[in-house]
Amino acid sequence: MVSGFQAGAAASGLKKSGEPDLGLIYSQTTAAVAGVFTTNQVQAAPVAITRERIKSGTCRAIVANSGNANCCTGQRGAADAAAMAKMAADALNIPEASVLVASTGVIGQLLDIGKIEAAMPSLISSISTDGWPDFARAIMTTDTVPKIVTRDVALGDASFSIAGVAKGAGMIRPDMATMLCFLCTDAGAAPETLQRLLKTASDQSFNRITIDGDTSTNDTVLLMANGQSGIVIEDQEAVDRFQEVLNEVLLSLAKMIVKDGEGATKFVEIEVTGADSIADARTVADTVANSSLVKTALFGEDANWGRIMAAIGRSGVPIQPAAIDIYFDRVKMVENGQGCGAGAEAGATRVIKQPEFKITIELNLGSCSALAWTCDFSIDYVKINADYRT
Amino acid sequence: MVSGFQAGAAASGLKKSGEPDLGLIYSQTTAAVAGVFTTNQVQAAPVAITRERIKSGTCRAIVANSGNANCCTGQRGAADAAAMAKMAADALNIPEASVLVASTGVIGQLLDIGKIEAAMPSLISSISTDGWPDFARAIMTTDTVPKIVTRDVALGDASFSIAGVAKGAGMIRPDMATMLCFLCTDAGAAPETLQRLLKTASDQSFNRITIDGDTSTNDTVLLMANGQSGIVIEDQEAVDRFQEVLNEVLLSLAKMIVKDGEGATKFVEIEVTGADSIADARTVADTVANSSLVKTALFGEDANWGRIMAAIGRSGVPIQPAAIDIYFDRVKMVENGQGCGAGAEAGATRVIKQPEFKITIELNLGSCSALAWTCDFSIDYVKINADYRT
Repeated sequence: MVSGFQAGAAASGLKKSGEPDLGLIYSQTTAAVAGVFTTNQVQAAPVAITRERIKSGTCRAIVANSGNANCCTGQRGAADAAAMAKMAADALNIPEASVLVASTGVIGQLLDIGKIEAAMPSLISSISTDGWPDFARAIMTTDTVPKIVTRDVALGDASFSIAGVAKGAGMIRPDMATMLCFLCTDAGAAPETLQRLLKTASDQSFNRITIDGDTSTNDTVLLMANGQSGIVIEDQEAVDRFQEVLNEVLLSLAKMIVKDGEGATKFVEIEVTGADSIADARTVADTVANSSLVKTALFGEDANWGRIMAAIGRSGVPIQPAAIDIYFDRVKMVENGQGCGAGAEAGATRVIKQPEFKITIELNLGSCSALAWTCDFSIDYVKINADYRT
Repeated sequence: MVSGFQAGAAASGLKKSGEPDLGLIYSQTTAAVAGVFTTNQVQAAPVAITRERIKSGTCRAIVANSGNANCCTGQRGAADAAAMAKMAADALNIPEASVLVASTGVIGQLLDIGKIEAAMPSLISSISTDGWPDFARAIMTTDTVPKIVTRDVALGDASFSIAGVAKGAGMIRPDMATMLCFLCTDAGAAPETLQRLLKTASDQSFNRITIDGDTSTNDTVLLMANGQSGIVIEDQEAVDRFQEVLNEVLLSLAKMIVKDGEGATKFVEIEVTGADSIADARTVADTVANSSLVKTALFGEDANWGRIMAAIGRSGVPIQPAAIDIYFDRVKMVENGQGCGAGAEAGATRVIKQPEFKITIELNLGSCSALAWTCDFSIDYVKINADYRT
C-alpha cells in the first residue's frame, strides 16, 4: 500500500474474545519518524519509551497491543514495554531502539508478556504489504469498525503514498492527540519537518474531537517516512502539499473515530463563528461538544437549544447572550439569544433526526471561528462503560 | 416552622403533569436577605431581577415556579418575571420591589403568565406556617423527593430556627450555587453579615457537588432573616454558631440534591488529601467527580481505579503519578500509583456495591485537602435527559 512498509497482526490472548490484539508495522529501511502524545500526566509505560526513542528521529518498526494499556504498572510495566519491543527487534533482526511500542486497553493491569512472547512468531510471519486491515483490527478496543485512510498524491512528475490507521473509541477529548494513530508515507522528510507537519495536522483534527471529555493515558500518533517514493518533503511547495494531504488524512481518521464513538448514534459538527479569538471559539465549541446535557439531547433527537445556550454561558469565554444566533444545518433556531418559534423548532427537529448534521453558533463578537466534532451520549455509552472491565 | 414565615404552593398548569408548580414564601415582617447566584453568563430573567432587588438588603416574599426556566426569553421574559412578582405583591399588599422571583425548568420557552395569574389567588390562600413541604414539592423538576432541612438552635438563653428548601437534580456542578435553595431564619442579621455567612456556606456545600458538570442558568440561593426569635447574629459567638448551623444545613441540602441526582444509584464522597493547595485539591476532586468514565464505572459497580488515575492526570494540577494512593472506604486499592492486587480489588468491589461510599485520593505532595460529592452516571440519566422536553 505504501512502498517499503509492511503490516500484520496476531492474536495473543490479551483480549478475552480471542480476537487479534497484537499488531506490527515494519519499514524495510530506516524511516524518519515524528510523534505526538497524550498531555495526561499519568502516562502509560509504552508512551514513555516511544517518546524517548523518537528523539533519534528515526525508527524501523512499531509493535502495538490492545486489551491492556500497560499504564500505572510501575517498573514492571516499563520492563514489559521494553521487552515487547526487544522481542520484535530480535525477531526482525533490527536494533532494539528502532522499535516503538504502543498499548491500549484497561489501565492498571500488568501485561501478560508471556502471551506476547508466544504470539511473536506468528506476528512476525503475518506481515505483508497488504496487512493493514489486519493491523487496524488488532488495535481496536471498543471500536466497532477498523479505521484506515490511504492517499496517493501526485507531486510534480512523481507521486507518494500515505496510509493512516487509527483506533478510538472512548477517553477522547480535544487535548493533544487522543487515541492511537499510525501513519506511514513513502515520501522522505527530515524528522523536524515531519514533527512540525504532524503537530499542525493533529491540532486541526485529533485535538478538535470529543467523545466523552476524558483524555487517555496512552494517546500516541506516530508518522513514519521512508523516502522510497523518491520524493523529499523539503521545498515549500512539497511541504504545503504534504501538509494539506496529512491534514486531510488525519481529519478523516478523526471523524471516523467520532462516528465510531462508544454508543454513538449521531455525528455532529459544531462550528463557532464570530469569536474574538480562535482560542475563544475553540473553548466555546469544546464546552458545547462536551456537555452531557447537550449530548443526551442529541441522543433524544431533541433540538434543545437552551442547553446549548447554557453550555456557551458557562464556557468561561466572555459572551453577549443577546447577540447569539444558533443554526441546525441551515435552520436558524436562535436569533439574538432567543428562540425563533415553532416553525424553526419543526425545522431543527427534522435536522436533528439525521445521523449527521451541523450546529453553528454565531457569537457576533469578532471574526474568529473554530470547528469541533462530537457525538451523542447514548444509553449504550453507559452500558459499554459500566461493563468495560467485566 | 420558623416564626413569622409562611409557605405554600399551587398548580398553575405550567407542568404538563398538573403537579404543583408555583410556590410562595412570605415573611410577615420585613426580612434581611442575602443571595448567591449562578456564574453562568446566560442568566434567566428572574435571576436578573432578584439579583437587583436584594441590593436593598431586605425583602418580604419569594415567588418561584417550576416547569419553565424563563431563560433566553428576552424583554418579554423580563416583563413576565416582573409581572409574576407584581401579582404576588399586589395580592399580599406589599411593595413590588420586596418580592423576589425564581424559575426552574425548560430554557427558551416563554412563560405562560396567564396561567400564573389564574393560579395566584389559590397560591396566596395556600400559605401557612406548615406549608413548607408543599412549597418544596412545587419547585421540583426531575427531582424525585422534596428536600427540606430544619434546625432549632440554642444560643445562650434563647434559640432560633432555620429552614431550608432546595431542588436539583440536573445541570449541577460545583461552580457557585447550583440549583434553587431558599432559606429562612427567625434570627436577625445585617444583610452584609448574612451575605458573608451565605457565601461561605455555599462555597463548602453547593459549590462542591456535581451531577453532570453543567452549570444552570437559574441557580439561586436566598436566605431571609426576620429577627423574630429576638436573637441577632452580631457578636463573634453568634456569628460562629450561625455559620456552623448554616454550613450544616446547606451541606445536608447539597447532599440531598446529589443523592436525588438524575438517574443516580450511588452517592460518592471524594476526598483529595496531600495537595499543595486547597485549589489544587478541589480541581482534582472536581475532575474525578465529573469524569464520565469514572461515573459510568460507579454505575457498573466496577472499582476501575485506572479511570480515576487518568482523571487525576488530566486535571491540570501538577502531580506525581507514582506518589498517589487511592482508597475505597478503608480498602487501599492503589499504592504509589499502582494497583494493590486481587485482595484489594475484591475488597473495593464490596465497597462499590454499597449505595454510599467514599473514595480517598492521597496525592502525597502537600498538606491541603478538599471534598466533593458526586453520583454515578446511569442509563436512567441518559433516558431522563434524552426525553426531557418531550
